[in-house]
Amino acid sequence: MTKQKRTVFYLSDRTGITAETLGHSLLTQFDGIEWETVNVPFLDDMDNAQAVLAQINHAAERDGHRPLVFSTLLKPEILEVIKQANCCIFDFFEAFIRSIEEELHQPFARMAGRSHGLQHHLSYFKRIAAINYVMAHDDGVNPKHFTDADIILTGVSRSGKTPTCLYLGLQYGIAAANYPLTPDDMDVQQLPAVLEAVKHKLFGLTLTPAQLHFIRQERRPDSQYASLAQCQREIQWQEALFSRYDIPYLDTTRISIEEISAIILDRCGLKRQLYG
Amino acid sequence: MTKQKRTVFYLSDRTGITAETLGHSLLTQFDGIEWETVNVPFLDDMDNAQAVLAQINHAAERDGHRPLVFSTLLKPEILEVIKQANCCIFDFFEAFIRSIEEELHQPFARMAGRSHGLQHHLSYFKRIAAINYVMAHDDGVNPKHFTDADIILTGVSRSGKTPTCLYLGLQYGIAAANYPLTPDDMDVQQLPAVLEAVKHKLFGLTLTPAQLHFIRQERRPDSQYASLAQCQREIQWQEALFSRYDIPYLDTTRISIEEISAIILDRCGLKRQLYG
Repeated sequence: MTKQKRTVFYLSDRTGITAETLGHSLLTQFDGIEWETVNVPFLDDMDNAQAVLAQINHAAERDGHRPLVFSTLLKPEILEVIKQANCCIFDFFEAFIRSIEEELHQPFARMAGRSHGLQHHLSYFKRIAAINYVMAHDDGVNPKHFTDADIILTGVSRSGKTPTCLYLGLQYGIAAANYPLTPDDMDVQQLPAVLEAVKHKLFGLTLTPAQLHFIRQERRPDSQYASLAQCQREIQWQEALFSRYDIPYLDTTRISIEEISAIILDRCGLKRQLYG
Repeated sequence: MTKQKRTVFYLSDRTGITAETLGHSLLTQFDGIEWETVNVPFLDDMDNAQAVLAQINHAAERDGHRPLVFSTLLKPEILEVIKQANCCIFDFFEAFIRSIEEELHQPFARMAGRSHGLQHHLSYFKRIAAINYVMAHDDGVNPKHFTDADIILTGVSRSGKTPTCLYLGLQYGIAAANYPLTPDDMDVQQLPAVLEAVKHKLFGLTLTPAQLHFIRQERRPDSQYASLAQCQREIQWQEALFSRYDIPYLDTTRISIEEISAIILDRCGLKRQLYG
């Protein structure tokens, strides 16, 4: 059986992040469909609206199914044009905004770019400061500033420390450092000395030896470093270390960077520093 | 006049990213309200649901207004508990999923964690590869690998290159390098030699001299580097350089990292490599 093919459009006055996030959440609930995605950010004039209308109608004809259109458009005149297309339209503002207006007893601003725009200088600086912190404290660099960290991730090579720190900095404004556990540390069966004083800020990342082996193989195929036996030794050792020192840790084998980050925030009681 | 104070809850089976994105997009359309935010990710058992019910009712009593609750909960029994609370609930799936089911002629999977979970190994490796590329090619490092870049951002110190590259890598899977323009380059009035061969991949970031001065003051107060005169010279010089070499560029003064990234993707015709 061939897969049903459908085209999906994400239409937005600005970045399109909201439309894509919401549409993606809904569509990932349906299996067995081949999606062709068309992103149209910064859709704010009538000529472009007419061009998108034609593009939607063309996709409908080509696919033999009308496209799904997710919209966060705010200009009524642009929306009116799109609504003439042969499509199934999901308008996020229309779906919720009236109820919120009623609840709050005030009309909405109908201003584009508020959600992912630059609203607050303070928030901007917090974010840049967090990113700078992450970049300056990656992979065990500058441990003398670890007292300023909101959290310090630790784990063996390729356990996902750097991507998680970057996500925590960029999306949540968290000053996240990371410190690698290396085979050298394994000899002493102790926490590296620089981590002792900041033990309460540590969070461990672990994964199955098989997954670590798989990831390391991509990096240095058939090396001692990537061998399953070595991965088994390192994982066994680090999990024992986490337990001995009461360091909370997480098995990241089957979860995404978003999920790892959300779990860390939740478990460590960290408050996100920015929205947007 | 004191601001109306309202509490908003984001309830989710998993990360809460979708619920927060939705609620944030809607609520930023209303001014003059002081929001207190409560994130409840990973809400998947009845005891926790009862605790959240109590928390919502408590907030309603304290604020004198019922809280707004944005939900991407998928378990009907959890949702039933929450619906007993004194709140105004916005159920994301309920609002849209039936229409999509009808359009696609199939029921939805009702499985949590699909949107921001780890769905595809390929996507995971693309993302990690992009992040590794960004980290290894920040601030002019390893220019001999610039031919592998999807895009190379350039601009003077503190023009926003690094945060933008990180966002492009992390959110879109784009291999983004960056190369700084320095006062040394100003003497020769030419593009740095390493950039000549990759000119077609360059994208410039600029901002107003006043904003650059403001940002640099945070970093090195009252230095020559941060002086308004120096910022004016550098900005004037780099914009002339971008024009002379036909390098597309963007004034980032009033826009967020999300907007800068979306504009770059749009203008350079880059396709995002990942979803989620």
